[in-house]
Amino acid sequence: MTDGISGDLSRLSLNQKTVEQWDMRQAIDGCVRHEIPWIALWRDKIEGIGLDETTRLLRDSGLKVSSLCRGGFFAAPTADERAAAIEDNRKAIHEAATVGTDVLVMVNGGMNGCRIQEARAMVRDGIAEILPYAEERGVKIGIEPLHPAFAADRAVTASLEEANDLAEHFSSPWVGVVIDIYHVWWDAYVQREIKRARPHTFGFHVNDWLVPNTNVLVGRGMMGDGVVDNRELRGWVDAEGYDGPVEVEIFNEEVWSRDGDAVLDQMKERYLAHVV
Amino acid sequence: MTDGISGDLSRLSLNQKTVEQWDMRQAIDGCVRHEIPWIALWRDKIEGIGLDETTRLLRDSGLKVSSLCRGGFFAAPTADERAAAIEDNRKAIHEAATVGTDVLVMVNGGMNGCRIQEARAMVRDGIAEILPYAEERGVKIGIEPLHPAFAADRAVTASLEEANDLAEHFSSPWVGVVIDIYHVWWDAYVQREIKRARPHTFGFHVNDWLVPNTNVLVGRGMMGDGVVDNRELRGWVDAEGYDGPVEVEIFNEEVWSRDGDAVLDQMKERYLAHVV
Repeated sequence: MTDGISGDLSRLSLNQKTVEQWDMRQAIDGCVRHEIPWIALWRDKIEGIGLDETTRLLRDSGLKVSSLCRGGFFAAPTADERAAAIEDNRKAIHEAATVGTDVLVMVNGGMNGCRIQEARAMVRDGIAEILPYAEERGVKIGIEPLHPAFAADRAVTASLEEANDLAEHFSSPWVGVVIDIYHVWWDAYVQREIKRARPHTFGFHVNDWLVPNTNVLVGRGMMGDGVVDNRELRGWVDAEGYDGPVEVEIFNEEVWSRDGDAVLDQMKERYLAHVV
Repeated sequence: MTDGISGDLSRLSLNQKTVEQWDMRQAIDGCVRHEIPWIALWRDKIEGIGLDETTRLLRDSGLKVSSLCRGGFFAAPTADERAAAIEDNRKAIHEAATVGTDVLVMVNGGMNGCRIQEARAMVRDGIAEILPYAEERGVKIGIEPLHPAFAADRAVTASLEEANDLAEHFSSPWVGVVIDIYHVWWDAYVQREIKRARPHTFGFHVNDWLVPNTNVLVGRGMMGDGVVDNRELRGWVDAEGYDGPVEVEIFNEEVWSRDGDAVLDQMKERYLAHVV
């Protein structure tokens, strides 16, 4: 596809959630067609066509896989539920290794009926439990702090400071953080924490915060449509030596209602105009 | 009114926003009827009946005024707009002194077309500019950090750490913080920051975070309906020596659609069951 968009796309990764309207095959084909070199996969989309078929399509495509989304969701009131979460995280590690990425994005999970301090302890225990298997399979655990609006129901790990503390607790090259602009842009201390994350930044996601934000879950913006200075934040992360893929991850119902090819065209334009 | 609710209500304050359906007179009468000793006022409600009439009703009622909401909203792209904001804050200080409270709650304002770092600098400059008049009138400036979901459009001051840093910057007994559970409960470092706020905690607000939270602005919960441990947080604040009023402030469209007296009954019950 010659769409007339030129510039350095070598670090651009399509996080497949940005084109929720596409299945796995469409997303892989779309990246190839639009000459996007990286893709980040979601497990529900893998399940849609199976792990073997996903792996085959990826091999044929030549795409690189920046991460698998997502492990985590550790907290639960009963030991059985927590054990099931550990088992599911092992499965996620296996899938990450199989599709050929070295980063499993961790959304640590919400309170799920527990007190928040208890839930945070369960997250720490859960990561400790899966860490040996992650190391064995060569998969890094990338803790993604979510926006505090999700602290109750999606991630008790609600700031980059907290994610850094958690990563440092393990002192392991296999545990680090994933920095998503949507979740951390508001933080007056984000630059301080980006510096702290230097040795263990395993991923970087871009998007935007719309004003007004009418739905914190599915109202994220495309870069340039909101108030976040993506280029400045990307510069801070790069200044610490991060030179890996830059994922565009946009949860947005309006984006999902559009033609996927139009979304990818716009994504490339906005990435060049507002990120690199 | 004998509503059968007994317990120590000596610190309970009705933040008037909880009964948005009531005008100033109804809110004052409601507090008297329900034997709630404190009330926190909003400026738009003062405007509804005038400052003189508000002051007269308050004097007759015997109620104590825990705070006036709100000053702030300092950031703006032009010098004229910033000067107008300063002028409005002086007016708010005058109103606070007139109604007889020593705390003006500061919602510092969003980005309003500025870069977030610039907006934060404008907030600092704005507080510096109004501080002499606040001191002259005996009104303390209580910086209320809002939930990060409001960083873009309501308060660039988005964590208690940031509010503490801002308060400490002034090293003045007239500048401190107001701690609202809804805005800070998610923060893994909230207890650390409550300790830091010890010398300058000028107010404390309770409510709850509902799951799911379908509207971050007007979907706050009544204490006991969500996931926040109000009693634990109240204990942390009190442990630092805070013994002032505890405001119940709930932005919730469903609460606003109910009979105001029923809201006050429930508020008292929940305060006794979940806060003190």
